[in-house]
Amino acid sequence: MKNTFGNKLSFTIFGESHGKEIGIVLDGLKSGIRIDEDFIDHQLSLRRPYGKLGTARVEKDPFSIVSGAFNGYTTGSPLTIIIPNENTKSSDYSDTRYLARPSHADYTAYVKYNGYEDYRGGGHFSGRITAALVAGAAIVIPALKEEGIIIGTHIRNLAGICDRDFDDYKSDIEFLNNEKIAVLDKDAKKAMIKAIEDAAADGDSVGGHLESVILGMKPGIGDPFFDSLESVYSHGLFSIPAIKGVEFGNAFEDCRLKGSEFNDPFSVKDGRIVTDTNHNSGINGGISNGMPIVIRCAVKPTPSIFKEQKTVDLEKNENSTITLKGRHDPAIIHRARVVADSILALITYDVIS
Amino acid sequence: MKNTFGNKLSFTIFGESHGKEIGIVLDGLKSGIRIDEDFIDHQLSLRRPYGKLGTARVEKDPFSIVSGAFNGYTTGSPLTIIIPNENTKSSDYSDTRYLARPSHADYTAYVKYNGYEDYRGGGHFSGRITAALVAGAAIVIPALKEEGIIIGTHIRNLAGICDRDFDDYKSDIEFLNNEKIAVLDKDAKKAMIKAIEDAAADGDSVGGHLESVILGMKPGIGDPFFDSLESVYSHGLFSIPAIKGVEFGNAFEDCRLKGSEFNDPFSVKDGRIVTDTNHNSGINGGISNGMPIVIRCAVKPTPSIFKEQKTVDLEKNENSTITLKGRHDPAIIHRARVVADSILALITYDVIS
Amino acid sequence: MKNTFGNKLSFTIFGESHGKEIGIVLDGLKSGIRIDEDFIDHQLSLRRPYGKLGTARVEKDPFSIVSGAFNGYTTGSPLTIIIPNENTKSSDYSDTRYLARPSHADYTAYVKYNGYEDYRGGGHFSGRITAALVAGAAIVIPALKEEGIIIGTHIRNLAGICDRDFDDYKSDIEFLNNEKIAVLDKDAKKAMIKAIEDAAADGDSVGGHLESVILGMKPGIGDPFFDSLESVYSHGLFSIPAIKGVEFGNAFEDCRLKGSEFNDPFSVKDGRIVTDTNHNSGINGGISNGMPIVIRCAVKPTPSIFKEQKTVDLEKNENSTITLKGRHDPAIIHRARVVADSILALITYDVIS
Amino acid sequence: MKNTFGNKLSFTIFGESHGKEIGIVLDGLKSGIRIDEDFIDHQLSLRRPYGKLGTARVEKDPFSIVSGAFNGYTTGSPLTIIIPNENTKSSDYSDTRYLARPSHADYTAYVKYNGYEDYRGGGHFSGRITAALVAGAAIVIPALKEEGIIIGTHIRNLAGICDRDFDDYKSDIEFLNNEKIAVLDKDAKKAMIKAIEDAAADGDSVGGHLESVILGMKPGIGDPFFDSLESVYSHGLFSIPAIKGVEFGNAFEDCRLKGSEFNDPFSVKDGRIVTDTNHNSGINGGISNGMPIVIRCAVKPTPSIFKEQKTVDLEKNENSTITLKGRHDPAIIHRARVVADSILALITYDVIS
Repeated sequence: MKNTFGNKLSFTIFGESHGKEIGIVLDGLKSGIRIDEDFIDHQLSLRRPYGKLGTARVEKDPFSIVSGAFNGYTTGSPLTIIIPNENTKSSDYSDTRYLARPSHADYTAYVKYNGYEDYRGGGHFSGRITAALVAGAAIVIPALKEEGIIIGTHIRNLAGICDRDFDDYKSDIEFLNNEKIAVLDKDAKKAMIKAIEDAAADGDSVGGHLESVILGMKPGIGDPFFDSLESVYSHGLFSIPAIKGVEFGNAFEDCRLKGSEFNDPFSVKDGRIVTDTNHNSGINGGISNGMPIVIRCAVKPTPSIFKEQKTVDLEKNENSTITLKGRHDPAIIHRARVVADSILALITYDVIS
Repeated sequence: MKNTFGNKLSFTIFGESHGKEIGIVLDGLKSGIRIDEDFIDHQLSLRRPYGKLGTARVEKDPFSIVSGAFNGYTTGSPLTIIIPNENTKSSDYSDTRYLARPSHADYTAYVKYNGYEDYRGGGHFSGRITAALVAGAAIVIPALKEEGIIIGTHIRNLAGICDRDFDDYKSDIEFLNNEKIAVLDKDAKKAMIKAIEDAAADGDSVGGHLESVILGMKPGIGDPFFDSLESVYSHGLFSIPAIKGVEFGNAFEDCRLKGSEFNDPFSVKDGRIVTDTNHNSGINGGISNGMPIVIRCAVKPTPSIFKEQKTVDLEKNENSTITLKGRHDPAIIHRARVVADSILALITYDVIS
Repeated sequence: MKNTFGNKLSFTIFGESHGKEIGIVLDGLKSGIRIDEDFIDHQLSLRRPYGKLGTARVEKDPFSIVSGAFNGYTTGSPLTIIIPNENTKSSDYSDTRYLARPSHADYTAYVKYNGYEDYRGGGHFSGRITAALVAGAAIVIPALKEEGIIIGTHIRNLAGICDRDFDDYKSDIEFLNNEKIAVLDKDAKKAMIKAIEDAAADGDSVGGHLESVILGMKPGIGDPFFDSLESVYSHGLFSIPAIKGVEFGNAFEDCRLKGSEFNDPFSVKDGRIVTDTNHNSGINGGISNGMPIVIRCAVKPTPSIFKEQKTVDLEKNENSTITLKGRHDPAIIHRARVVADSILALITYDVIS
Repeated sequence: MKNTFGNKLSFTIFGESHGKEIGIVLDGLKSGIRIDEDFIDHQLSLRRPYGKLGTARVEKDPFSIVSGAFNGYTTGSPLTIIIPNENTKSSDYSDTRYLARPSHADYTAYVKYNGYEDYRGGGHFSGRITAALVAGAAIVIPALKEEGIIIGTHIRNLAGICDRDFDDYKSDIEFLNNEKIAVLDKDAKKAMIKAIEDAAADGDSVGGHLESVILGMKPGIGDPFFDSLESVYSHGLFSIPAIKGVEFGNAFEDCRLKGSEFNDPFSVKDGRIVTDTNHNSGINGGISNGMPIVIRCAVKPTPSIFKEQKTVDLEKNENSTITLKGRHDPAIIHRARVVADSILALITYDVIS
């Protein structure tokens, strides 16, 4: 089920960077969810390149809901959103057809699909396809909100520059969800933008860490083992191109603690069971315990850079070099952030259904 | 599909810590795989507590293959391995039935299953169940070896003590797979054992990082998006109790690199396409590129500690304390390592099938 | 997975009768299958109403392949076909919105979706959606042919009029696949058309039996139990609206035979193992034995009739009557036949992959 | 997922006729279902051979629940039932190892598994494995009853002898569920038993039709297309060895009716919406409408007969003959009946969950 994920809510994505249309089919939505097209637009705008930080191709994402909605509400039947691809310049890619871009999927796709893959702009491997995920998630995010669940992500660090930690989750999430560049601290944001622009000026790119929070999940959601919340969230997140690491809470650091330091003591607070610390990131035994679920992703630097790189010619099977033309994003992390939010929202809708 | 995972090979686990039997059903195995019961025994022995480093309960794991094998070979029908639970002292648990152990699944299971869960020793949430995964994987590991694929894991660090890096993957893996405590460097190993023993003496526990390598995967295996190798491997790994972080390669650190530093240049070497560096950890666009796949897991300190801890009484919904009795593992990371190997082996068998 | 089916090849359908577009996503296709748009057109034409035998709405089915194809071949990525809905007169349906048409899904959809369903023309329950299955199958039918597998269906009987039995499967299938009304015997065909027209003149409708043959399946395909060929083929066929019975071979009659009469003796013929009779319809233990797979479907009479019918008003929860307006197909069996072929082709592609 | 079926409730079966144990894993059960071991025994007894009508091997089915139950209730974790195989005489089978029994899976298994299959007594293809389904279903049948859903099956006809039609579904089902030979009419039952004994005396076997009823399903359960109730029920039923046809209601006959005769008019009765007739067998558009769901299965005559039969020697690839020794059931239809009930119960539990 390569391009379909989820149980009660399943979502299927399709499309290529330079194909006719990309899209998503959401199956398993409850009927009666009000559809907010402006919110879909808003979410898609967060994924689009911003100002100088972007590719020459400005995608307008004029999405269309072609099934599953009627009179402004979901019907309960599969809801499909289509986004046409526009302004695609395919000629850009034919020259370098056999020159595998390092850190891209050109070589692996060539092997897997025997040369039949649509190589233009990364084809089906393009980050472009994530626009469909973003649009689809924009259907369920309002439904989650009605259940008291909100999700937000900030750029925790970029090129060595760190954002401040979350303070009040609720207000921080609300702030982030209206920011184009999702950074909590103003100065950190300025520094990050500068780092991106500097990399761009040098034909280079940057990466960093995202930190997401899922707030308001009731206790008792999830399962032990293969459907643990950690398993399903990480599965979804690792499907986002460029994500190479996922940790819950501060796991990689906190593993150095003693058990007596790491364990989260339970208390009763206002009649509700909470934990005093949250090293387990809201999940015990794969199941939510009601505390915030904090997830961090390592996002590798954008593979598309404009310096000459060593590579091979796939057709001739010999060493070569490649220098990409055009303009690409020197950072995708600020756009990947809304993709992370989106995949977390889709999976959250699934697990609470 | 909470307790079933995999596509072409699917595996289903069942059992509780103090139930009658635990087990695994492997469905989708090729017929004609020779079954090596000694190897299954060997693998199970790596998961068992070792010397002073263990629980009082020494499980002998007298497994039994009850279906799917005939005359020493797999038949192609579902292969089931049963492991009886022995020496279980259930009385140990009734006193503390409503005292949720911090960092354990007691509270979340209580909420999810309305108090019907088998609470003894963690029930179905117990690490005990992973013995079934280890036994099942011991069926496919020899089959992978015939395909040129070997897998090994070491404790990269524990309580701040670091092992050396992998040097020659092949010989290091062979070494590790015969070690009870999988550490490459002798001195590091001694120091780790001492750290575990010190924690034990103090009624405390430790955690750390595992690092696994999958060697010999041909290029072209995997898929973009939801069946990316990162997605399926992380899904499996996060199903192991105690694993709270997964990164491919050195992702969380390497994300601070520039694209020009991170990208892995391709070269032709002996007629074969390789990459000069391996920041992408053998995976581009979710698909193997033929390089070693290196995966690191953050393993939280064992939740079972013997100091008094704050907790709540689930029945009375009020604050309380718990002090665990008996002896438990002060570290499970050295046992989790064979579980990581096992889950990686099962998933690898699935994706190459 | 309500609208997704299949393992190695999975197909997802979406759309409503009077929505914007219907479509299908095929995931798991091999790369390099040549796409024949004329053949897709041909198959879609077999599903469209024919001459007097049809609804006033003539759908032109101007399909568009929006992903998964490049330079005339499949890429291996999800292939999506979109078919816009045209000439939809939604006003026809608002008057009778709460009058559940007997034998239709109006009532059950109303209950399931709480009144949010798109009720126009049956919405997502419409036979219209099967056009997407037909288009999708038209991608794999040529690929099956290259594997030596051909599929064909005739109307075995309609309103009591019987077609002749299959004679030479291969030539009969070739004949049928170019016929708009798939009947082998000329006179039977004339009589059937007359029966349809008579029913139409009376505002009534007819049903009947389809008989399909899958020819050229190698032995060894399929599985025991839940993935038996009978299970997966019937699953697919029963998803076609109007199909209420499925038998393999002449099962309902042949069950009255003694074992000694029913059992199919094996023989070696030209070095190949065959059976002398084919009561098991090419399937033993869920697995193909190399003989033709013959499947019959009971297709209920088209629910849309133009006589007054007793029904209830769903809003008022009281007895009422309904008289449908407009023109609808008095028989759908001649169109359902290409849908049966299509679903059998898609599943066959899946099981041999 | 060859041996796993179901979504919210999934069930996995394993075992061979002459292996060590057979079993089932039920995953997705609610916690807190009371387990009635006597009822499991009762259901298993209905599947066992009866008096003269049986194989020499009398299986006592001493099942054991090895996981998922605690203090007499389901825990919500995977519930596993194991049934050891006893009194298996494997030597019976080695003589005829390469002689494919007609109408059995010997040949197809040999091709699929390259000769590694456990050929003794049909191995994994044996009806023996259905005992696990029966035991598993005995967990959910009481839970369904609490939801007001009861299921029963009678032998509608056998060797040409017909039972009476259902009269009062509720009392008929209660009667049947306590009968070893599930026939409503006393005289028909006597005649059927005689027909079976006559066939047995002649070394032959008989088949027939089963008719099942699912009573008490609320409207709104099921889905259009691939998860239509017809699709999922037929999928399950066709997984039972020997079932070669499935129809809903009287489909194969009723398809000859006109639409005006077939359509089921809706009425309001005691404030509830019902249909006056039930040609659609309680299902419209794949979704339950609240009326009884009536399903008929064609069960082929037991393949095991004791007359000499033509066959081939698989090793030598040449014509041969086979004469089975020992005693087998001359009819399995009276035992298949409880298997049909069981699979319908498991799927019903799944779809209402």
